[in-house]
Amino acid sequence: MDTNEIFKHLEQFVRERDWSQFHTPENLAKSISIEAAELLEHFQWSDSASLEKVKDELADVLTYCFLMAKHYGLDPNVLILEKLETTKLKYPIEKSKGNSRKYDQL
Amino acid sequence: MDTNEIFKHLEQFVRERDWSQFHTPENLAKSISIEAAELLEHFQWSDSASLEKVKDELADVLTYCFLMAKHYGLDPNVLILEKLETTKLKYPIEKSKGNSRKYDQL
Amino acid sequence: MDTNEIFKHLEQFVRERDWSQFHTPENLAKSISIEAAELLEHFQWSDSASLEKVKDELADVLTYCFLMAKHYGLDPNVLILEKLETTKLKYPIEKSKGNSRKYDQL
Amino acid sequence: MDTNEIFKHLEQFVRERDWSQFHTPENLAKSISIEAAELLEHFQWSDSASLEKVKDELADVLTYCFLMAKHYGLDPNVLILEKLETTKLKYPIEKSKGNSRKYDQL
Repeated sequence: MDTNEIFKHLEQFVRERDWSQFHTPENLAKSISIEAAELLEHFQWSDSASLEKVKDELADVLTYCFLMAKHYGLDPNVLILEKLETTKLKYPIEKSKGNSRKYDQL
Repeated sequence: MDTNEIFKHLEQFVRERDWSQFHTPENLAKSISIEAAELLEHFQWSDSASLEKVKDELADVLTYCFLMAKHYGLDPNVLILEKLETTKLKYPIEKSKGNSRKYDQL
Repeated sequence: MDTNEIFKHLEQFVRERDWSQFHTPENLAKSISIEAAELLEHFQWSDSASLEKVKDELADVLTYCFLMAKHYGLDPNVLILEKLETTKLKYPIEKSKGNSRKYDQL
Repeated sequence: MDTNEIFKHLEQFVRERDWSQFHTPENLAKSISIEAAELLEHFQWSDSASLEKVKDELADVLTYCFLMAKHYGLDPNVLILEKLETTKLKYPIEKSKGNSRKYDQL
């Protein structure tokens, strides 16, 4: 199953409900933050959470991310790989190995 | 390019830096929220944002989402499609068409 | 120093910069989330953070919260105490003592 | 009503439930982000929200902010005013008047 198939399913879901009017980039950005916090809520008081709850909320974050990628004509997989190349340069192995410092503190 | 290939690239990146020790589910959940807010920041005072900035931050949210999915052995594409089936039931077309009310207010 | 004095300082700061045009409730809500995530970022990979960084970001969250309270003519102190009464009812001592479960799971 | 009185009410509420064990700085930081997103949720699809819902969620954000300030022995009012002095320097009136650009783009 590839990204285009996911996009087609999302598109049909949105079109049938006439919801594209609500899916402005700004509203999608808010929605990603809102769902990310619902995912975080399962780790609010503990460092572990039930798999079912994680799946549910992670799916919501991913869905809004894919809707935003789709809005801009971007492929989520390509986005991740392209950013990974930038991140590799910001975090050279020899400087970042085994520590979690930000690139500007390496 | 499929999800497994993305996972392989992410795994190598993390392994080379010995970063898996930091990528607990809780830390990934925090990271998703943090990056989601950086995406939102580009819409803080306006309903539009530059494509370059959106790409950059959306990639970060997606990357942490994929790392979390990978941690739990989940496929992001499957997660999205499975959740879409649940959401279709919560938002029947005839009740939700053209409005943005939550399912418990339909 | 009371809330009204804080409000007066904030008002002058905003008026001098002609920024009230940007401080719609929606933009303030986004801003609170954005600053909350910057605070969280100091706890991204660790359970402790430097006091200076915490002060800086906590101040930003509080500032936007006060601006929103001011927008609606609300007193932050009263808001907290009123909500505390509701929360007391949702979390009776005998049921919630020593555990972190949500009220609907008590 | 001043901050110390609020702190006393919060302290009693927490002590009676034996909840201080959960209120680590990290957990409070997560909680502030989570509640901030619940506030934002009322603006997810619209630029306005009902006052009752805003009050409810803004109170939650403020409560966790006050609990964190209290944890570090900080006065929320002082935090806001001190940060305002820093912000004034970063955003000189003549450069920032009437625009919402970040200080590094002024």
